[in-house]
Amino acid sequence: MKLVIVGGVAGGASAAARARRLSEAAEIVLIERGPDVSFANCGLPYHIGGAIPDRAKLLVVSVEQLRTRLRLDVRARSSVERIDRAAKTVRIREVDTGHEYDESFDKLILAPGAAPLRPPITGIDLPGVFTLRNLPDMDRIKAAVDGGAKQAVIIGAGFIGLELVENFVERGVQTTVVELQDQVLPPLDKEMTAPIVDALAARGVTLILQDSAEAFTQSADGLSVRLKSGRELPAGLVVLGVGVRPENKLAVDAGLDVGPRGGIKVDEHLRTSDPDIYAVGDAIETRDAISGAPVQVPLAGPANRQGRIAADNVFGRPSKFRGTQGTAIVGLFDRAAALTGATEKALRARNVPYRAVTIHPVNHAGYYPGAEGMTLKVLFAPDTGRVLGAQAVGGAGVDKRVDVLATAIQAGMTVYDLEEVELAYAPQFGSAKDPVNMAGFVAAGLLRGDHPQIDAPALAALAESQRTLVDVRTHKEFAVGHIPGATNIPVDELRERLGEVPRDREVIAYCQVGMRGYLATRVLKQAGFDVRNLSGGYKSYRMFNP
Amino acid sequence: MKLVIVGGVAGGASAAARARRLSEAAEIVLIERGPDVSFANCGLPYHIGGAIPDRAKLLVVSVEQLRTRLRLDVRARSSVERIDRAAKTVRIREVDTGHEYDESFDKLILAPGAAPLRPPITGIDLPGVFTLRNLPDMDRIKAAVDGGAKQAVIIGAGFIGLELVENFVERGVQTTVVELQDQVLPPLDKEMTAPIVDALAARGVTLILQDSAEAFTQSADGLSVRLKSGRELPAGLVVLGVGVRPENKLAVDAGLDVGPRGGIKVDEHLRTSDPDIYAVGDAIETRDAISGAPVQVPLAGPANRQGRIAADNVFGRPSKFRGTQGTAIVGLFDRAAALTGATEKALRARNVPYRAVTIHPVNHAGYYPGAEGMTLKVLFAPDTGRVLGAQAVGGAGVDKRVDVLATAIQAGMTVYDLEEVELAYAPQFGSAKDPVNMAGFVAAGLLRGDHPQIDAPALAALAESQRTLVDVRTHKEFAVGHIPGATNIPVDELRERLGEVPRDREVIAYCQVGMRGYLATRVLKQAGFDVRNLSGGYKSYRMFNP
Repeated sequence: MKLVIVGGVAGGASAAARARRLSEAAEIVLIERGPDVSFANCGLPYHIGGAIPDRAKLLVVSVEQLRTRLRLDVRARSSVERIDRAAKTVRIREVDTGHEYDESFDKLILAPGAAPLRPPITGIDLPGVFTLRNLPDMDRIKAAVDGGAKQAVIIGAGFIGLELVENFVERGVQTTVVELQDQVLPPLDKEMTAPIVDALAARGVTLILQDSAEAFTQSADGLSVRLKSGRELPAGLVVLGVGVRPENKLAVDAGLDVGPRGGIKVDEHLRTSDPDIYAVGDAIETRDAISGAPVQVPLAGPANRQGRIAADNVFGRPSKFRGTQGTAIVGLFDRAAALTGATEKALRARNVPYRAVTIHPVNHAGYYPGAEGMTLKVLFAPDTGRVLGAQAVGGAGVDKRVDVLATAIQAGMTVYDLEEVELAYAPQFGSAKDPVNMAGFVAAGLLRGDHPQIDAPALAALAESQRTLVDVRTHKEFAVGHIPGATNIPVDELRERLGEVPRDREVIAYCQVGMRGYLATRVLKQAGFDVRNLSGGYKSYRMFNP
Repeated sequence: MKLVIVGGVAGGASAAARARRLSEAAEIVLIERGPDVSFANCGLPYHIGGAIPDRAKLLVVSVEQLRTRLRLDVRARSSVERIDRAAKTVRIREVDTGHEYDESFDKLILAPGAAPLRPPITGIDLPGVFTLRNLPDMDRIKAAVDGGAKQAVIIGAGFIGLELVENFVERGVQTTVVELQDQVLPPLDKEMTAPIVDALAARGVTLILQDSAEAFTQSADGLSVRLKSGRELPAGLVVLGVGVRPENKLAVDAGLDVGPRGGIKVDEHLRTSDPDIYAVGDAIETRDAISGAPVQVPLAGPANRQGRIAADNVFGRPSKFRGTQGTAIVGLFDRAAALTGATEKALRARNVPYRAVTIHPVNHAGYYPGAEGMTLKVLFAPDTGRVLGAQAVGGAGVDKRVDVLATAIQAGMTVYDLEEVELAYAPQFGSAKDPVNMAGFVAAGLLRGDHPQIDAPALAALAESQRTLVDVRTHKEFAVGHIPGATNIPVDELRERLGEVPRDREVIAYCQVGMRGYLATRVLKQAGFDVRNLSGGYKSYRMFNP
């Protein structure tokens, strides 16, 4: 068996290592266009910022190690120019010498990754306008910062954009982020990003939404970025983080099927339309694990697992990739935002029926010092209660709850199961009723009809004449800020003051985070009112209406 | 409906709150023997140590709040003396006045908790010999430390014992722990506690295993503890943490069924043998969620959920308790130890077939600073691969992995599912191949026959003539320490030196944590050797042989 693997980072390197473990006899050729194999892609921003001062740490495994330990035939700085499917060869060009030659294969695994998008903006090729994909890219950006760049403009407020923001700020660079959409972190539901917007503001980052770069020009003291709005931004350096496109040229030229967004099509065994060619990682179109819809999800975790699975299949083991649920996380200063499974906007776009609940718990027992707040949103099927997706944003413990919910989604668990999840509790680690349990209680209460809820956008859509808005917080909380039109009846006075609540229209109760509002809803419901609790309370209202 | 609840802490308070949410009309009487209702039981050690300086923080909800907000008829310092099942009344004694009276009920929920065991040791009633269950107990222990106690002896190295150790050490008290068994944290498998033993030693704590207190005596400058071994320990204070027994007297006197270890018997609706009486929390015998075996698990999480479920049933909702899987965690200085589901010793005791794997991953990408090590052990069924239990010990991230595995166990997931779990990865939060994935790979490799493994006790049981032990680490690592009788062939030289490995007996390969040993196993297996990898490598060997 002669296996040729094109691309030596996450998916390709995993495939190669797995292949060697499965077969000592196989000839395994690993071809990488760049100088580095198996480097820590996700660590690049942190070397620029200084959190990872030693560049060598990013080289997870050396070429030498791959050669010695795994007996891989590693060819770095070698570009695969084309695939001859009939002859079962690839044409390889040595980047440094230009020398070209053919290499035969029995099986081929394509792991070429995805390339940063470079939209046709005037001046995009100016020095000082960067993208970040590999170590040389990182070196160039770091050199610009080391060289004294005082102002940076980042185009795109996605995951990589925000990681760069953090690292530029750590270096004392005045940073502006420009995002075409009306929110940062476009994969998340918009209201969930409010704490991230706050974190940007708190660290002096300028955020410009619903705008885009129209031209980059060289000025005397650096670059200037002209936005579509007409605004001009001075910049010592610019980084484009506006997304990636699958590196599909090899596949397309070879006549392999690709999807409408360019991802190489594969079956569940990660086989392309040619049975001897597999493809993995950021270059492929895979399936959403929940909906089955085709998706392109450029994430390291799935890429690594796909590498294993492709190698399994090459060596006759029919492993399957179950699809991806898009679990991802980004840190920004002391905040984290994470998601798994479907978002509300994705479900709405696909016309999938769903319900959502939002809670604002702390990460561990409130009586133990250092508890940090988070917002946790869970989406689920209205009929079965099956968990469809989750998002969390906040401080410590966001990753843990999203990981638990990612596992629950994979297992097909329902919100009723979340009520029963038995997580580890000691006051410094969690709560006797963990945030995941709480989300389960609130969601199950909604489905059982015990706890009718409405979210802030739906509330805004109700005419004022249709509803009475009752703020059940204290007078003091009410005085600090409340939803326009609300009447203040503290929950502790509610039972005595039911006569003040009109019975001719729906009542919407709310408190700060939804707990007292829930009790108020129970009181009112049992007193015969038509009532709903505002999901996530005033805190969620403020996230929807910053 | 008149509901009387006996006991106002975790299970009782949860039941009362849930009951009120379900019924505004119900009369709900909450009777608590102690002065405090709904206090933070699990926080007590941390007020002694000073991490929670404000005692009031431990009073999660005030009696006043329960009265006003939930309209509960709260009667603190009131002891229920007996239940008259025929008359459907309880006899209540006011602790302060001695006044007794009867209270009728339609339904009764027993949540009396468990009392610390007080073995019949000479001198156990001396001042300065404490147990820790409630706020007054805590106050007494704290007063002893505040009063200048310089030496503490803790009898019992379980969860509460070790939490007290941490807090005494924080206060500068010289602390000795005495444990009857041959390990700390008896619920865990012994080798998993090695890092906890190290942490105790590092902080100057004296640990005495396989010994017990035989007598406490008052001396001129404090107490003296005489151990069964004859050893005498001076002590400014002594705390007994040797377990708890269900507070079952009320139930027994009323003729309700109790289990062999004293737990009040309940069905899945938490109903006792009297259909009008429910019981929840530390006082009951419940079911192990995996094995179905009867268990007594005094943990706050299950108690809280049981309270909800009992209240549901009182008000006609047939909620069921699914049993407990015993998920628990303890922090000790910068270490944590956690478990969920079955341990190896529990499975062995019950003659349940199982396999185990142990790995030693770091909590997030190794290239990002601050990665902390952990040991993760996963137990699973040999036929189906279903996850049966997990334990983790180490630094940051232990709680997250045990929570993910607790969820996987609840869902009935297999080790093949763990291979595919899609967790949130960014370098400061996790790894592209998370420890949970890695445990899945290693376990699935074992079941598939790709990765035969042996653990250290099984290795010790093999006669030297039966096996060749090959240490595949570097010469330098080998020189620092190795398993007696091992031959050193670094993995990178193994393929060239196969001729040195005898073919007439089984080969056991090992490295530091199991990764290189796995590759060596693959190389040897494919070269025709009968070979197994030492699970967890030299690190696990050292945990079994400290």
